[in-house]
Amino acid sequence: MSETIRILGVAGSLRQGSLNRALLRAAADVAPEGVVIETFDLLAVPLYNGDVEAGGDPEGVAAFKAAIRAADGVLFVCPEYNHGVPGVMKNAVDWASRPPSGAALSGKPVGIIGASPGQTGTARGQSQLRQAFEFTNSFCLPQPEILVFRAHEKFDAEGRLTDEATAKYLARYVAALAAWIVRFRDGG
Amino acid sequence: MSETIRILGVAGSLRQGSLNRALLRAAADVAPEGVVIETFDLLAVPLYNGDVEAGGDPEGVAAFKAAIRAADGVLFVCPEYNHGVPGVMKNAVDWASRPPSGAALSGKPVGIIGASPGQTGTARGQSQLRQAFEFTNSFCLPQPEILVFRAHEKFDAEGRLTDEATAKYLARYVAALAAWIVRFRDGG
Amino acid sequence: MSETIRILGVAGSLRQGSLNRALLRAAADVAPEGVVIETFDLLAVPLYNGDVEAGGDPEGVAAFKAAIRAADGVLFVCPEYNHGVPGVMKNAVDWASRPPSGAALSGKPVGIIGASPGQTGTARGQSQLRQAFEFTNSFCLPQPEILVFRAHEKFDAEGRLTDEATAKYLARYVAALAAWIVRFRDGG
Amino acid sequence: MSETIRILGVAGSLRQGSLNRALLRAAADVAPEGVVIETFDLLAVPLYNGDVEAGGDPEGVAAFKAAIRAADGVLFVCPEYNHGVPGVMKNAVDWASRPPSGAALSGKPVGIIGASPGQTGTARGQSQLRQAFEFTNSFCLPQPEILVFRAHEKFDAEGRLTDEATAKYLARYVAALAAWIVRFRDGG
Repeated sequence: MSETIRILGVAGSLRQGSLNRALLRAAADVAPEGVVIETFDLLAVPLYNGDVEAGGDPEGVAAFKAAIRAADGVLFVCPEYNHGVPGVMKNAVDWASRPPSGAALSGKPVGIIGASPGQTGTARGQSQLRQAFEFTNSFCLPQPEILVFRAHEKFDAEGRLTDEATAKYLARYVAALAAWIVRFRDGG
Repeated sequence: MSETIRILGVAGSLRQGSLNRALLRAAADVAPEGVVIETFDLLAVPLYNGDVEAGGDPEGVAAFKAAIRAADGVLFVCPEYNHGVPGVMKNAVDWASRPPSGAALSGKPVGIIGASPGQTGTARGQSQLRQAFEFTNSFCLPQPEILVFRAHEKFDAEGRLTDEATAKYLARYVAALAAWIVRFRDGG
Repeated sequence: MSETIRILGVAGSLRQGSLNRALLRAAADVAPEGVVIETFDLLAVPLYNGDVEAGGDPEGVAAFKAAIRAADGVLFVCPEYNHGVPGVMKNAVDWASRPPSGAALSGKPVGIIGASPGQTGTARGQSQLRQAFEFTNSFCLPQPEILVFRAHEKFDAEGRLTDEATAKYLARYVAALAAWIVRFRDGG
Repeated sequence: MSETIRILGVAGSLRQGSLNRALLRAAADVAPEGVVIETFDLLAVPLYNGDVEAGGDPEGVAAFKAAIRAADGVLFVCPEYNHGVPGVMKNAVDWASRPPSGAALSGKPVGIIGASPGQTGTARGQSQLRQAFEFTNSFCLPQPEILVFRAHEKFDAEGRLTDEATAKYLARYVAALAAWIVRFRDGG
């Protein structure tokens, strides 16, 4: 148990200034000793297309699957668009759930958090994403939950988390996710 | 009311041999007189990226929004991936819901149908997609519903619908969607 | 169109001091001229039991169905328990969706609003309830939405709405629901 | 690990002849050695009412919470009404999630299965119920899933499961749930 816990962090927005990209960086910053969050940028993952897949995974997809497999767990930082999971985020999960060489997400511990300028903090986006992990047989941490509402007031112009209460919750969340991962690593 | 009712049909899979593309063609075939279903191919719509959008809608996105606006209603033919809406399908809705020049889907009557090789006929994919239309203020036909289960047994090798019961349900569905569209066109 | 529009209001909590009961009273207070919201108290509706139903609807259930049928539309004021629709609220819908003498909710315009002490304002509870109305073939107003967050700060000790912004939104919502009902009454 | 694993089984229908009650009995029958499924009948659990709760849990509710706490895990056998979780089933979870003396479901491993006469095998009912367990911090087995479709053809007039394929899946499911429970018992 003295080994480093490696978590892959994935933000579901392609926009550079995204609040959810900022939240992912903040999560990496508050990770406790022995826990490392490394980021995979979904800009590398194209739209899912079974005809393309039949010729082999595109480079970005192969890299995404490899990164998931190499990690002890995955943290999805999920915006909410139109009361649900963004197409960009779900599309990445759709690729990762596919063969060849085994569904990368099966048996993998995962966590979901999110931030939005509105009041609901991506609650509905997170709920839809969570349903995907039933199918992929991933082990999704149920609690605590992180719904960062009015998020534009909690980050500065450089995208640094400035709200202390949120930073504390986030640190607690990352620690809980790490403990969840250890539970499955040792129990598996 | 003697005018033609024009429905835009959109399939949520990019694979040419997709059962849902086949279902969309079948829906166009069984449309009653006075109702036309024209198809928009989502291959033209890239992944949503707010940084790209800031420079103006990509050509495919502009064409998609224009096609929605020109139509009296939209028929979404929705696969189910990982217990939910495919990223490809949700991504198209995410673009269409955005400015500039007005959210194309607001106040638009829409329908959802789907086909899958399994038993559930994309029930959960359709449910998630439907939630998006609350936010976009689209008017989504509640009943009847079309869940084409074991769909691979209901189309031939050329992707033609061969199951008569399904064809009848589908014809009834398209007629119901047309009546739903008329209700809003005249009542609006 | 000079006729009064009669809306049945139903709160999904049995507790007398419930914020959602208070929100329903507030909605009745802000209804525009020509619109009346009358309340049905779910204390009268027992748990759904098919064996009981086989012997005829219990008195409270028969009264609930009759009240729905007599109304031009129904306003559901929905708490959120455990990330979803309260059992109490869904149970009432389960009864109302059943024969004999026709499913009371079919073809009925409905609206959903809700209040909670937390940040999300019952967003997930409302989403689950809305899914029921696909099946019952009810016409559910998509927008605007009313998610009253931190609701305990917006009502006084007597359960009167004291927050002016919320009162304004609520008045706009009731007007929108009335317009939605008229659209179906005249278009149907 | 030689200890018996005790699973509490709860069916979400009050009707005696319910297919889901029959499915729960069948699950108990196929439980492997060392695993016991005991049933709690929801007829004992009234509608949730915070005013009643303030005076202490009703007898049936206290018994339900005690049964959950005494069990190593809980199996929810979930019908689908109106595209969602039955009010009866959700109502029981709403009670169990409440104080006093600790939320009975927190940290508890749970499973969900279901049966329906239609094609979808309660897929949408199960999805909604599963969302509740995020909030209650229960550990919900993601796979396999049991969606017993056309269930009326798979049980005889006495409610005995006669379909061999379903019986095999069910036995595999109960074994998987037991292994899931052990994982948390020992890992916790």
